[in-house]
Amino acid sequence: MKLHTFPDAPSPRRVHLFLAEKDMEIEQVFVDMRTGEHLSDAFAAIHSDCTLPVLELDDGTCLSSCAAICRYLETVQPDPPLLGSTPEECARVDDRDRWVEMNGMLAVMEGFRNSVKGMKDHALPGRRPVAQIPELAERGRQRFQWFMNDLDGMLSNHDFVAGDDFSVADITALVTIDFGLRGMKMHLPDDCTYLAQWHRAVSQRPAIQAGD
Amino acid sequence: MKLHTFPDAPSPRRVHLFLAEKDMEIEQVFVDMRTGEHLSDAFAAIHSDCTLPVLELDDGTCLSSCAAICRYLETVQPDPPLLGSTPEECARVDDRDRWVEMNGMLAVMEGFRNSVKGMKDHALPGRRPVAQIPELAERGRQRFQWFMNDLDGMLSNHDFVAGDDFSVADITALVTIDFGLRGMKMHLPDDCTYLAQWHRAVSQRPAIQAGD
Repeated sequence: MKLHTFPDAPSPRRVHLFLAEKDMEIEQVFVDMRTGEHLSDAFAAIHSDCTLPVLELDDGTCLSSCAAICRYLETVQPDPPLLGSTPEECARVDDRDRWVEMNGMLAVMEGFRNSVKGMKDHALPGRRPVAQIPELAERGRQRFQWFMNDLDGMLSNHDFVAGDDFSVADITALVTIDFGLRGMKMHLPDDCTYLAQWHRAVSQRPAIQAGD
Repeated sequence: MKLHTFPDAPSPRRVHLFLAEKDMEIEQVFVDMRTGEHLSDAFAAIHSDCTLPVLELDDGTCLSSCAAICRYLETVQPDPPLLGSTPEECARVDDRDRWVEMNGMLAVMEGFRNSVKGMKDHALPGRRPVAQIPELAERGRQRFQWFMNDLDGMLSNHDFVAGDDFSVADITALVTIDFGLRGMKMHLPDDCTYLAQWHRAVSQRPAIQAGD
């Protein structure tokens, strides 16, 4: 299998941090998003949606959802488990990971893609032109603020996003927070002390530092 | 475990069709979305996001993502498998299911919630007021059209959304298509013959008819 990737972008970063936490190495094919290589005919022939990352399996299957990629990698190398161990824990990790994606990552994408000049006519991923909507940029910032507040509340009871153990949901949340703060020029709210503590702790994990 | 639900709404319908395909019965608690019961303090105490469905496990865990609920139900009752059998097949089902959710269901939600009068200030799920954005309603319709075209292309090679076998991705796609057509008053495009054929076949499955 091989990973088509551009590590600086947030979605590929999720997979790279996952691989680092697993201490796993796989073949990588660099696709330069800065020059628009992911929108080229050559890459569209591999993955017509033109998004990154893409995990190409040995049987030719191309996976393009970060979460599906991570789930497949977990079956290839189960240890350490990053998707939970018991059925209930797996369910909590899955549910919380999706919550982060729907409420956090999508909010950041709304805010970022609808406001940044370089994203003109790229308000959604892919080759089809999609115009920016300024009201959506504003809504994205508001949603991201709500997301940080809600995540702070969840972290007031547990050390990690899905409970007492580090999981893929922490990776998704870290990438979301880092990209949201940088991409929309925002700050962690002062009153989100649990979130700030978690952010420091997770950012300092050796695998996270090695994965970046 | 028990399922908090309102079967007429699209997201709960995904879980009901999944249960029907499994021939599985579980305790249900009816929450009346028509009267706004899901936005009440009583329901917010169970699930603060105020979305449906919610699967409450015996240990008190509440799952609110349809996909996480279905994945947990698959572990409780593995047969018939609806999330794939081999690791590669599971990965394809997972990836395609997420593709349908991100490109289809989100498009329909954009189009529906930003245009229907009853959704004023409810452009996103939950109790926080979110204003409708007319441009987003229009974008949702456009995205849904693209989604139908792309899905038709996928179905030109395989009988089902994730390959040669019926899976949860077909349920997600069926609910998305049905809700999109009804909610946005649209029609299946005339040239999407594979999509139309799939839609007829899946709609006529005994379990799908029993689940509705």
